[in-house]
Amino acid sequence: MSYSFEQAAEQAWQWLETVARFSEIQNPQRNGVTRQCATPEHRATLDALTTWMRDLGMSVRQDNGANLIGRYASSNPDARTLLLGSHQDTVPNGGKYDGIMGVMLPLVLVKYLRQNRIELPFHIDVVAFSDEEGSRFSSTLLGSKVLAGTFDSNMLYATDDAGVTLKQALEDFGCHPERIVEDRYAPEDVIAFIETHIEQGPQLELENLPVGVVSAITGIERHQLTIHGLAGHAGTVPMHVRQDSLVGAAGVIRLVDALCRETEELVGVVGKIENAPNGVNVIPQTTTLSIELRSPQDKVRRRAREQLLEQIDASLTASRLTFDHVLTYEQSAVQCSEWLSRELEGAVQDSGITLRVLFSGAGHDGLAMQSLCDIGMLFLRCEGGVSHHPSEAINPEDLTTAVEVLANVCRRLAKRHDSV
Amino acid sequence: MSYSFEQAAEQAWQWLETVARFSEIQNPQRNGVTRQCATPEHRATLDALTTWMRDLGMSVRQDNGANLIGRYASSNPDARTLLLGSHQDTVPNGGKYDGIMGVMLPLVLVKYLRQNRIELPFHIDVVAFSDEEGSRFSSTLLGSKVLAGTFDSNMLYATDDAGVTLKQALEDFGCHPERIVEDRYAPEDVIAFIETHIEQGPQLELENLPVGVVSAITGIERHQLTIHGLAGHAGTVPMHVRQDSLVGAAGVIRLVDALCRETEELVGVVGKIENAPNGVNVIPQTTTLSIELRSPQDKVRRRAREQLLEQIDASLTASRLTFDHVLTYEQSAVQCSEWLSRELEGAVQDSGITLRVLFSGAGHDGLAMQSLCDIGMLFLRCEGGVSHHPSEAINPEDLTTAVEVLANVCRRLAKRHDSV
Repeated sequence: MSYSFEQAAEQAWQWLETVARFSEIQNPQRNGVTRQCATPEHRATLDALTTWMRDLGMSVRQDNGANLIGRYASSNPDARTLLLGSHQDTVPNGGKYDGIMGVMLPLVLVKYLRQNRIELPFHIDVVAFSDEEGSRFSSTLLGSKVLAGTFDSNMLYATDDAGVTLKQALEDFGCHPERIVEDRYAPEDVIAFIETHIEQGPQLELENLPVGVVSAITGIERHQLTIHGLAGHAGTVPMHVRQDSLVGAAGVIRLVDALCRETEELVGVVGKIENAPNGVNVIPQTTTLSIELRSPQDKVRRRAREQLLEQIDASLTASRLTFDHVLTYEQSAVQCSEWLSRELEGAVQDSGITLRVLFSGAGHDGLAMQSLCDIGMLFLRCEGGVSHHPSEAINPEDLTTAVEVLANVCRRLAKRHDSV
Repeated sequence: MSYSFEQAAEQAWQWLETVARFSEIQNPQRNGVTRQCATPEHRATLDALTTWMRDLGMSVRQDNGANLIGRYASSNPDARTLLLGSHQDTVPNGGKYDGIMGVMLPLVLVKYLRQNRIELPFHIDVVAFSDEEGSRFSSTLLGSKVLAGTFDSNMLYATDDAGVTLKQALEDFGCHPERIVEDRYAPEDVIAFIETHIEQGPQLELENLPVGVVSAITGIERHQLTIHGLAGHAGTVPMHVRQDSLVGAAGVIRLVDALCRETEELVGVVGKIENAPNGVNVIPQTTTLSIELRSPQDKVRRRAREQLLEQIDASLTASRLTFDHVLTYEQSAVQCSEWLSRELEGAVQDSGITLRVLFSGAGHDGLAMQSLCDIGMLFLRCEGGVSHHPSEAINPEDLTTAVEVLANVCRRLAKRHDSV
């Protein structure tokens, strides 16, 4: 009696619905799913996952970073390990799929393999990372840094809004934070890490594709730009002598938008603006903007930054405005492993799906995992590209495709393994 | 023993310094001059003015709208009256000259006339208007509306921040607000109203001129424009599908600025902007702007509005953005009287000053007085065009020029009077 990809997808859907109910309920503003690190909701989720993993014959453990890891062991005890998984946590008032879907898909893959008695020459470890979003302790990528051995123990003293330290929260959650260093994987034991995640953007939906292969995780830089003009009476100062900081800011916003539209593999936004004195009849004196640039190619991003700063300088100087500029944040891009991406691409095509390669504009656990091992990512389309929002939605049929692609990947890795 | 214009200007300077000290002193944030309607500072100012007026042989009365009126009477009891004056009140933390300078200049003109025994065939009434700025009761032009007979008695129930009604405040100030209607001038008794005021803009200073003649008081309209886009993850939504409300707003800001720069006798500003959700990594969803247009020609302003709304519609529609638009305020322009402006222009040229005619981009008591009589205005340059600010400053020598021009005007009006 074979177990189909459709049945696996239905199982994933049920489990996702169940886990979506493990959401902060004390909050009267509750909307969507709120499930942060080392909370009762996290505990309820890990308890459910533990039960399901054990039913699949997996060995289960919680590490000292509050990750849950279930192993579907190969019959060869000396086999290396393929890591699959994603994060269990959500942003406040997030959706049902961002993160946790990437835990359920590997689990139902395991169910598919087990029910169909498919043996693999490697172990599969399914990881529910404790905290990727970092909403509670501003501790992004906590779980993956623990596995990669890059966790900075100073982070243990970060506090949440109630003043609880991460250290205390982990201890209350049954962890021994002082032993986090022991939880890193040995690089030589790991084949790769593959994450499935919703796209959080509209490209797959626009092209009517269920899945796509990720080429890289974006690099990000953020700037704060403060433009200085001269306030004045909006009726009495002639146009040609005005030094209007908001008019200058408008020019900058258009420059950022135009440059990103013209440049391949670059996106950017002015998301935030503050204007002073911000009165209907006063010429603006000071306008502050955020500028964010993202690219999977650090070179592209840095070249764009240089161009943009030159253009901003020319534009504001021509308007007799001055400005201050601070680079507030910069994170390099991470490329997905080439060989692994080729296998993921092949696995997509094995299923008769048109191949689409895209980069991730958002950060993921792969950013930390890449210092441990080769990484690969598979994106699933999501409705309207919406995420971090209660209305986050997926097409249930895409889960079927995704399990099939993961099964294809395993077959390909097994073949590769045999041939090595 | 003649009394010179220089002496008159020195007197005006002294009185301005004295009155600047009648400023709200309870306020720990005190900076500049704060003198609002029907306050102890207003009382101290009227007491000093009363003393000085009486010393000049003027008859003095306070009307029921808290205006102070000093009459320098002609020897002909049936003569008509030339009204001169400006407002005694300031905005919070304002300067020493906006308003009150236009009370002191006519007073020292009277001193000049009296000391030099110059007789005129008309009365001069010097008015210290109670409240032009409207900072306390949001009651702009209170004093001038009382004299013009256009005061709306519903305004008596407007309250200040402490909940005190205008009616109560006027009663406590010794007025009988129910008798305000009796304080209007009869139009047939009035020759004209002439106000001297600082320019509140930089044009005279830029042209190195002490005074200029005002052609008109600007018309004003204000709009609130709300632009609707679609929020999204700033990393995952491709540039070509974004509907970024702030990028749309930037286009509108540039359109307003460009149209006003291209159009004669039009100024305009986007002074206020609110953006949501206003996060560094979120594509803006909703941006609200104020748009203000001013012109001394209502036709110019209305044509500009039509052009602008068409341009905004085209620009936002092209960016797949929608918008709501409300006209929140509109006030027509008021033209200064042609014959009176000719006399003011002649009076400026009589003093050997290059003639500069300019419009007032700010509102003034003339807006109300024009329904009573012909109006004219003389602007004095102010430092850097700055007003409504503690650093408001004038060149003391310009007071000399201004008194001389006022004396010239009186001579011209007397001649005109004789020839009629």
